[in-house]
Amino acid sequence: MSNPTAAILIIGDEILSGRTREANAHYLAGELTRVGIDLREIRVVPDDAQAIVAALNALRSAHTHVFTSGGIGPTHDDITADAVARAFGVELDVREDARALLAAHYAASGLEFNAARLRMACIPADASLIDNPISAAPGFSLGNVHVMAGVPNIFQAMVASLLPRLTGGRPVLSQSLRIDRGEGVIAEGLAALAAQFPDLSMGSYPFIRNGAYGTNIVIRGTDPVRIDAAMTRLAALYPGEPE
Amino acid sequence: MSNPTAAILIIGDEILSGRTREANAHYLAGELTRVGIDLREIRVVPDDAQAIVAALNALRSAHTHVFTSGGIGPTHDDITADAVARAFGVELDVREDARALLAAHYAASGLEFNAARLRMACIPADASLIDNPISAAPGFSLGNVHVMAGVPNIFQAMVASLLPRLTGGRPVLSQSLRIDRGEGVIAEGLAALAAQFPDLSMGSYPFIRNGAYGTNIVIRGTDPVRIDAAMTRLAALYPGEPE
Repeated sequence: MSNPTAAILIIGDEILSGRTREANAHYLAGELTRVGIDLREIRVVPDDAQAIVAALNALRSAHTHVFTSGGIGPTHDDITADAVARAFGVELDVREDARALLAAHYAASGLEFNAARLRMACIPADASLIDNPISAAPGFSLGNVHVMAGVPNIFQAMVASLLPRLTGGRPVLSQSLRIDRGEGVIAEGLAALAAQFPDLSMGSYPFIRNGAYGTNIVIRGTDPVRIDAAMTRLAALYPGEPE
Repeated sequence: MSNPTAAILIIGDEILSGRTREANAHYLAGELTRVGIDLREIRVVPDDAQAIVAALNALRSAHTHVFTSGGIGPTHDDITADAVARAFGVELDVREDARALLAAHYAASGLEFNAARLRMACIPADASLIDNPISAAPGFSLGNVHVMAGVPNIFQAMVASLLPRLTGGRPVLSQSLRIDRGEGVIAEGLAALAAQFPDLSMGSYPFIRNGAYGTNIVIRGTDPVRIDAAMTRLAALYPGEPE
């Protein structure tokens, strides 16, 4: 039996203008090779509904999987979810499960859950959500199309959530903790913790917020009891806000 | 009048496997923005004749220009020229002007001009050559398709040769000198020379050959007399081998 095939569709004017150097395709190419999915094509298209729909329909009929990156944020030029719904001919509206994820995230982080941010809860009715442990706004899978964020560390976290589902492994669960310290400060303690939980993966995603360094730690594994245990230890080491 | 549009077609299994991080699309995206050509799409396809031909025909009918990168070297998987000839339905054979360029280059550098390298002189009959001041093997333009090398510094040198022709500027001429010293050693002298010839551009393309650092300097401009003068000064500063 030959391997499943895949295409990556990158969406964003900023790539085509040369302003932003695209990095997600290279990252995902390596991950797909690792899990035995043959990547056959990468396309980059602008923030243009007609171009996105045309590319989606060409790629989803030709490949086992299509992975998209970009265009699912809160601003007017984030039109990927709408284009995916159009390509599949399905309705798009605020979905309660996605809205609840965002409401909890913004309540925990003290940010306003405004109308623009509510756009990120617009998900096609039949899609399954892709976990975003960094900033809550989910990606989604509809049919063989997997829609993910363009921000590289969120994209990578979504890929980590999604790939085990596609390759038939046990579902991977995750919990995250936001720590208001830089990666360099916590690296040693995190490495020691990871050594005590070799069955779990611990991802570190640095950020800068209001000029201060912080790190989101995402703990993943297949055993929820073990994840709880590791998360409790982590929270004791670095008291922070669970997100 | 709206701007001309363009697509970039990147050819190479090594990009899709994640082994190589693609860099030419980002570089060319910035250059196209600078000269007022709207980049509308980037595609990456494998070293597969059918995939290349299909992408070429889709993109060349949709855009003013199509720029390709990769697949024009001497090995069996370098099939871009053949695919371009197939897409246009034209013959492909060794062309005398391209063969002469390669013969002169290999004679000057003491490398054997073998059958594999002769493949790089196979150019569609009606194509115009794109200058390769680094390693001689030319790119070519056929209709609105511009075929260039995948090696980043050669790709960039070819873009510099090609773009003025597309945007209606005066033809840009070039001469190059290979200097068997690293960029860091010659940077100061080169900067002083460039300041004396503000009407010329001086590109520096580092390489490592047999473990030793070297630099190809390409001097470009529209006035051949000025280029000769600058090249004479450069050769006196850093005696080397003209290529």
